[in-house]
Amino acid sequence: MKNALNKFILAILASLSVLTGTAKAQEDGAWNIESRTLPPPAAASDQLRNSLANSPAPNPASRLLVPQTNEQWEMMIASADAEYSGGMSLEMLEQMNAVSIEKDTIAGVPVYHVMPSEVAPENQERLFLHVHGGGYILEGGDNAVLEAVMVTAASGIPSISVDYRMPPAHPAPAAVNDTIAVYREVLENYAPEQVALGGTSAGGGLTLASVLEMKELGLSLPGALYLGTPWADLTNASDSLYTLAGIDRILVTPEGFLTAAAELYAGERGVDDTMISPLLGDFSGFPPTVLITGTRDLLLSDTARVHRKLRDEDIVAELHVYEGLSHAGYMIEYGSPESLSAFAEISAFLNTHLE
Amino acid sequence: MKNALNKFILAILASLSVLTGTAKAQEDGAWNIESRTLPPPAAASDQLRNSLANSPAPNPASRLLVPQTNEQWEMMIASADAEYSGGMSLEMLEQMNAVSIEKDTIAGVPVYHVMPSEVAPENQERLFLHVHGGGYILEGGDNAVLEAVMVTAASGIPSISVDYRMPPAHPAPAAVNDTIAVYREVLENYAPEQVALGGTSAGGGLTLASVLEMKELGLSLPGALYLGTPWADLTNASDSLYTLAGIDRILVTPEGFLTAAAELYAGERGVDDTMISPLLGDFSGFPPTVLITGTRDLLLSDTARVHRKLRDEDIVAELHVYEGLSHAGYMIEYGSPESLSAFAEISAFLNTHLE
Repeated sequence: MKNALNKFILAILASLSVLTGTAKAQEDGAWNIESRTLPPPAAASDQLRNSLANSPAPNPASRLLVPQTNEQWEMMIASADAEYSGGMSLEMLEQMNAVSIEKDTIAGVPVYHVMPSEVAPENQERLFLHVHGGGYILEGGDNAVLEAVMVTAASGIPSISVDYRMPPAHPAPAAVNDTIAVYREVLENYAPEQVALGGTSAGGGLTLASVLEMKELGLSLPGALYLGTPWADLTNASDSLYTLAGIDRILVTPEGFLTAAAELYAGERGVDDTMISPLLGDFSGFPPTVLITGTRDLLLSDTARVHRKLRDEDIVAELHVYEGLSHAGYMIEYGSPESLSAFAEISAFLNTHLE
Repeated sequence: MKNALNKFILAILASLSVLTGTAKAQEDGAWNIESRTLPPPAAASDQLRNSLANSPAPNPASRLLVPQTNEQWEMMIASADAEYSGGMSLEMLEQMNAVSIEKDTIAGVPVYHVMPSEVAPENQERLFLHVHGGGYILEGGDNAVLEAVMVTAASGIPSISVDYRMPPAHPAPAAVNDTIAVYREVLENYAPEQVALGGTSAGGGLTLASVLEMKELGLSLPGALYLGTPWADLTNASDSLYTLAGIDRILVTPEGFLTAAAELYAGERGVDDTMISPLLGDFSGFPPTVLITGTRDLLLSDTARVHRKLRDEDIVAELHVYEGLSHAGYMIEYGSPESLSAFAEISAFLNTHLE
């Protein structure tokens, strides 16, 4: 059946041959894709479309300058982190979201507790354990808590956000070890089925790596995962890194900064270690998972591949793709219809799958 | 919260300003995306990756020649349809798939019955009503049945495939009317909850348009829908038409052939009529729906937008995105791991949601 029907179907392609170009593929099978004009996404929300229409085109060349020494990395990280908060204090975040934020230390790891002003009865014994993004190197300290605030505000579920150690001082697996250390302590107070683990970008990758490590350690797994456009394969194998290069306005291109951050984070382990690129690991027995990405997300493929790999293991897994959204756009365009919808899907999923 | 946090988040972008290009957007907000090298998708299956590595790059210019008269359309359609079957007869399809195929007429519309050699007890009273693809103008006659054979072979559910009328002789809404006419007759023998409706590309769009029409007519809706990369918005508003132009090796570009086919099909109604572009219609009360697309699918956005619109109406809807797959690649690369997985997801969904 398979081969004969393949031939059959290939005839469809042949029938279109009068319409098809005859340009030869390159030696390695790579294609040259011509330049093109990309209009703002007509079917995105007004807010997102206008934001894109008023932004300059992403410039891949702009990502090619990367720090060359640990000192340069530290300066770059400090500078980026200082500007990330935009002058907004934790107090302002608290007031605007009707949450309280409290710094703490759990198992020696700095964390942030996020509590809604009122906790509904069904959420009294639930927790969202948050692992922040930032390319495995950015957004530590107070910046860590932002997405936890967003999830708690949307879902009503209290959060703990892990301010894990990062490079250059602490490459992998420090971040996973810190997450696991906090999770172990959390299990003293919560049943695992009542805990969701998740985050965006590096936070999604760390969520997956942490679950792989929990399996290794024989720990009970969380009740649900949230993976926001997870950076789950740091080997640059994903298709959308190339199809959407120069189109994602946040990550822009895998070349330069992203690849350098991956190598800095991986350290001696190398990027193809399953602790660094958990997409290469074994997802059997994983918890129900909700995934979010967009049509302009450089990590669309990472997200879709994680979804497929979970489904191949018969895991309950929901994939949501937003029109015109770049990497983590539901955080960047916070309050947009796309963002409200994404956090509503995350909330609904956690409320369905946490006990 | 919204505005202040937006400002807050915009600071993230500002913090990256040293890395960001300063090129001005064009007047209409469109971006110029530079040419790039696109490697074969490293994380796709060997079969799909090798197939792509050995194919020439899609050539957008090749789609610009379109028929100018009805006579030219008829010649082009006849030529494409004659080659589509690749010399494979219905008998060969039957033997290779352990199905029987029978031509029939229902309510005056030519149809094909597809029966598995053995019908499992749970499938005795279930039906997959199939609406074929082909850009609303191609793949009529015996070609119509191919995807129905694939779904029946995978799911064990008997199919009826509708060989609906098409342009240039029969523009919209003839195809929807034919589908509805067959559906009405089908309801004489099946409960609606036991019937799934679906198809790929134009077949997905026709499925949506038919359900909109059923709502208008007050008919009971089917128990489930299958939408394979549905061509659901013929107004060229979808983002992936532009982000993936020159990358999808099947559709290649919205310019030329696709746009001309849309206009030929729409006829006097115009492409923004909800019967032509059902994505613009009201999806409230729609049945549970499974959707399939790929990271190189020009209709990735149509598929994702339909999914989001269904979810906004709280409809059970599952989206599956395959790495490296162009439009309808699960049919073109039939037998590949991607294709097997897609038809397994479709089967599982229909078996879950049909009574």
